[in-house]
Amino acid sequence: MDFISEQRLDDGVVERAFRLGEIPGFLWTPASSPAGPAPLILAGHPGDLDRMYPRLLARARHAAAAGFATATIELPGAGVRPRSAVAEQARADLRRAVTAGEPVSDEVVDRLVLPLVEAAVPEWRAALDALLAVPGIGGPVGFSGGVISIGVRLAAVEPRIAAAVLFAGSYVPRAIVEEARRVRVPLLVLLQWDDEHNDRQMALDLFDALGSPEKTLHANMGGHTGVPQHAGDDAGRFFSRHLMGAA
Amino acid sequence: MDFISEQRLDDGVVERAFRLGEIPGFLWTPASSPAGPAPLILAGHPGDLDRMYPRLLARARHAAAAGFATATIELPGAGVRPRSAVAEQARADLRRAVTAGEPVSDEVVDRLVLPLVEAAVPEWRAALDALLAVPGIGGPVGFSGGVISIGVRLAAVEPRIAAAVLFAGSYVPRAIVEEARRVRVPLLVLLQWDDEHNDRQMALDLFDALGSPEKTLHANMGGHTGVPQHAGDDAGRFFSRHLMGAA
Repeated sequence: MDFISEQRLDDGVVERAFRLGEIPGFLWTPASSPAGPAPLILAGHPGDLDRMYPRLLARARHAAAAGFATATIELPGAGVRPRSAVAEQARADLRRAVTAGEPVSDEVVDRLVLPLVEAAVPEWRAALDALLAVPGIGGPVGFSGGVISIGVRLAAVEPRIAAAVLFAGSYVPRAIVEEARRVRVPLLVLLQWDDEHNDRQMALDLFDALGSPEKTLHANMGGHTGVPQHAGDDAGRFFSRHLMGAA
Repeated sequence: MDFISEQRLDDGVVERAFRLGEIPGFLWTPASSPAGPAPLILAGHPGDLDRMYPRLLARARHAAAAGFATATIELPGAGVRPRSAVAEQARADLRRAVTAGEPVSDEVVDRLVLPLVEAAVPEWRAALDALLAVPGIGGPVGFSGGVISIGVRLAAVEPRIAAAVLFAGSYVPRAIVEEARRVRVPLLVLLQWDDEHNDRQMALDLFDALGSPEKTLHANMGGHTGVPQHAGDDAGRFFSRHLMGAA
């Protein structure tokens, strides 16, 4: 992991841009160093760091105010990273179905999401290895955000993930719903009830399938990007409850 | 409204037992008097104040710590109040269906719940008239709890209800689902995902039908009485956000 820039923001949060091999990423750390190393939140997103930067930064500032470090990396096939012909075709097929008002087939969802999960999850785990070696960054680790299938796989296979806030806002392959039964860490699932990019019943089925004994669903009105401030506050309290006590 | 006893509890909360005609009730007011009159939360429950008292008191203490007064009255046909032959028969029919593993028919649900709503809602409105005349008690007013059909009807017809926390934990007649479309006040609906007394899909349908532009669903694991502490805290923050700012 190579740090390529560092700046202190107006609220004292330190932002570092890095590269993990070819993969760009950001690390934000709180203004004041707490007693020990800061617990880390991996901030998931749908891809394209340039476009997502303002929202990711807002989430990182919010988390920093509660003592958390936040890190994110670019997704495979997004932003400056090479496109995948398979994913581009699947995305075009999905768009065509949605535009035509047709149901999106499981086959298209699998073709779009499963290779993304396969490629992304090892990268997030490698990022985790590197991030936990940075001075001042410690465990426990949370995952927050989307793509929800990446979050589910990470929570299922990565033992360092101690809690997760999952944003239900993308298509979920049936195989991931099955995999969800293996997740055991505390979960908060955020669902936008009228999400234009999401199948509500699929999100409820995924929530039902998740194997965690402690899981909570927060559904709010509005579309994909209309998550209300109080839902973000809920996510912050969730991580404080599950990661700070254990720090 | 006749006050029949008054005591100051160990945390300074003042508990007054009252009768509204034949209907017993309680009023709990915060230890310290705030700048103005305390906003009021009507605490709904499934009936039988003696049995529900410990949980109602815990909710009232929690609300008092945030500056709210809390009041409740006995439901028709419950506790010391005369039984309704119609309701007792409907309850027996429902129990028989549940015990036999049969679906509970709409007809039984209507027979059980609709007369209860018809009888209870005017009583809660009369209690509201009396409570708002008590020195130190003011608006705005929230409703919190179950029976959810009573809460929906109250929120739909009583303009003094400014926000409601509804506990999804009882059967809901189809007519009440329709009525839910008329509700406009901010809502938080609490759903126990594995509630043994509740039909989850019915609760989700009711949530979907509620007409409020601002509504949130919080679903947690566990059965009917297993609402986690953090869900109670969410309810407190919800009322503070919607009732305290407007006070």
